Amino acid sequence: MPEPLRLGLAGLGTVGIGVVKILQNHAALVAARAGRPVEIVAISARDPRRNRGADVSAYAWEDDPVRLAMRGDIDVFVEVMGGSEGAAKAATEAALAAGKDVVTANKALLALHGQALAEAAEAAGRTIRFEAAVAGGIPVMKALTEGMAGNALRRVLGVMNGTCNYILTRMETAGLPYATVFEEARSLGYLEADPRLDVGGIDASHKLALLAAVAFGTRVHFEQVAIEGIERVSIEDIRLAADMGYRVKLLGVAQMTGRGLEQRMSPCLVPADSPLGQLPGGTNMVVIEGDSVGQIVLRGPGAGEGPTASAVMADVVDLARGFRVPVFGVPARALSEAPPAVQPAPAPYYLRMTLVDKPGALAKVAAALGDAGVSIDRMRQYGHAAPEAPVLIVTHKTTRDALDHALAAFATTGVVVGAPVALRIEAV
Amino acid sequence: MPEPLRLGLAGLGTVGIGVVKILQNHAALVAARAGRPVEIVAISARDPRRNRGADVSAYAWEDDPVRLAMRGDIDVFVEVMGGSEGAAKAATEAALAAGKDVVTANKALLALHGQALAEAAEAAGRTIRFEAAVAGGIPVMKALTEGMAGNALRRVLGVMNGTCNYILTRMETAGLPYATVFEEARSLGYLEADPRLDVGGIDASHKLALLAAVAFGTRVHFEQVAIEGIERVSIEDIRLAADMGYRVKLLGVAQMTGRGLEQRMSPCLVPADSPLGQLPGGTNMVVIEGDSVGQIVLRGPGAGEGPTASAVMADVVDLARGFRVPVFGVPARALSEAPPAVQPAPAPYYLRMTLVDKPGALAKVAAALGDAGVSIDRMRQYGHAAPEAPVLIVTHKTTRDALDHALAAFATTGVVVGAPVALRIEAV
Repeated sequence: MPEPLRLGLAGLGTVGIGVVKILQNHAALVAARAGRPVEIVAISARDPRRNRGADVSAYAWEDDPVRLAMRGDIDVFVEVMGGSEGAAKAATEAALAAGKDVVTANKALLALHGQALAEAAEAAGRTIRFEAAVAGGIPVMKALTEGMAGNALRRVLGVMNGTCNYILTRMETAGLPYATVFEEARSLGYLEADPRLDVGGIDASHKLALLAAVAFGTRVHFEQVAIEGIERVSIEDIRLAADMGYRVKLLGVAQMTGRGLEQRMSPCLVPADSPLGQLPGGTNMVVIEGDSVGQIVLRGPGAGEGPTASAVMADVVDLARGFRVPVFGVPARALSEAPPAVQPAPAPYYLRMTLVDKPGALAKVAAALGDAGVSIDRMRQYGHAAPEAPVLIVTHKTTRDALDHALAAFATTGVVVGAPVALRIEAV
Repeated sequence: MPEPLRLGLAGLGTVGIGVVKILQNHAALVAARAGRPVEIVAISARDPRRNRGADVSAYAWEDDPVRLAMRGDIDVFVEVMGGSEGAAKAATEAALAAGKDVVTANKALLALHGQALAEAAEAAGRTIRFEAAVAGGIPVMKALTEGMAGNALRRVLGVMNGTCNYILTRMETAGLPYATVFEEARSLGYLEADPRLDVGGIDASHKLALLAAVAFGTRVHFEQVAIEGIERVSIEDIRLAADMGYRVKLLGVAQMTGRGLEQRMSPCLVPADSPLGQLPGGTNMVVIEGDSVGQIVLRGPGAGEGPTASAVMADVVDLARGFRVPVFGVPARALSEAPPAVQPAPAPYYLRMTLVDKPGALAKVAAALGDAGVSIDRMRQYGHAAPEAPVLIVTHKTTRDALDHALAAFATTGVVVGAPVALRIEAV
């Protein structure tokens, strides 16, 4: 029997316990696939006495994850503690310095310190694998890094935060406003301790930055993601967008253009009958577009004990098999610095505005759009009781610049009440 | 610079030319990802003089693919000729015997001779990779073999023949009968030279048998797939199924049950709003269900130059990186012999029948179902001008045995005209 692959497991939250369960329940299956046994040697977590629904008494215990990471009797350091700084970072650095491979579910750590960690890994002849960090159980990093290796990637986009997708889906199906569904999600335990990580789009943007780096061979630059959360998505826009055949999704898009690398996370409209439009509740979806393969769509659970542990195990089995892909697909020093795109690629936009109900109001809006070079694809004016008329406009493809000029001009027309809503319509 | 990985390419049809183009257009990108250059050294195809839309004059030429496979200056034999016997088989065997790894798009070859070839590969310390053989550009073999390595797989199902999906989709959207759309597909060049490979479900069943072997760690047994093609799917059933909220798809399902391994390929109903139900035209979809990860859905182009070449390149880059997964995920001698399931797992069924229009007819049908232990979920009787009444029944979950008893009993009621249609409704 070949030598076992020995794991040090840092973190016994949902994901850590999931990993313990898989290795306890499927030891033979994993060994057959990995070509050697895979075993947990030692564990580190906050409270050794807490009952976690799995028996961890057979494993050595380290109070300090840094000490765990440096143990001579482990080959792979599995980091499922979370947090971009502090113990998770120190322990990951210590593991690499001690010549261990690292498997992590920590998107924040890699989004913020990915380049330095990748260089440290390569200096030690090791790697960091992070399938569990992006889109939970979906094997998207593997698809992108290995499955699309023959493609120049064009665009990677998707829904990468299940909680936001739950909130938006629930708003539409139940007809409830954001604040109500947000409280529901909080009481159901769907939100992070700091909910801005979810609804502010930060968690999803960590994932997007990692996808972009691998897709385009560029250094990870989380701080260049243009982030807008879902806090201002109104039930009215969800309803009216549905009426026009769209759904609102918190969409992350990474795209290499002639004007640089675009990374943006924002509420967008997608066709209701597209795979992204059909995506329900807490599910995640990543769409990958390559020049040879065309469009590949991957859908699955984005979080939870089983799915995330499944992704961790995929990385562990790869390492047991001796597969070491560089952290971001190519050597860290070969990653390029792509200039960030100043503007997003042209797209159609959905505009909702309220007009004063008097003759010529619509003509003034149409003129302002025309003057800015924005042409109208579809327009809908709704019946109303009040003296102010809600108007929807779907534009043809336009630059954000031109659109912003038109929006600025609206203010001078004297017929637009309040600030118009503008949402990008992403082609998928 | 590390040594290049040297390819011998057998076959210059659509896929072979796609591989040539990727390596000519993306040499630097592929080398960066593979960690070394990847180059074609020699080629074999039927006619060296034919113009193929890519310049192949720089490569050595072998008239005989077996000689190509044995050349001392190649590391990997890329077999994209097709055919389960003859030259493809002989050349693959020769390549393995000569210590080459093999990358193939040949589903028939592996479905029929997979076990012997896997054993030959392992005896030589080499492997055979076949991402391109299943679901075109979708990296499904990688997802299953590597991405789900921590899961006990439960079920793998999907739409694996784009031509059949095109025909069924077109029948529904255009309201045309099978024969008309079949001729359309033939004139568009969508069908294999022997169209039974497509519409008879054989091509898709080759793929299903390979998926089943990898998913369940069992020896590949194509001959145990219960195959029914789409030739008898009527426009009437497509219309009526749509009316009940379903779509008809040629569905391949591999499922490990307490009664053995189920492998079946047949027209089934799926909910119209499910990912499988939403799958348009020539696209493929594979759904993988694992005990930890839950359900993963993969969608993409199932055929064509770019997508299939993309899948070939994924395997080539893996080999360049030194990754050698065993042919069916675990060593060939460790693959088990699962008994084939005699009956498919219980499911609801869609029944369409014509009843004579006289009092008590429906009661007799209902009684026959009840006597067989089959209970009715929904029933619909359509208005009609003729004296014979079309009736639709959706049953609750039932065994195929019980259903067959009921169908046999219908014949004795004297009220059912002709043979009823029974289609399985697959839960997805």
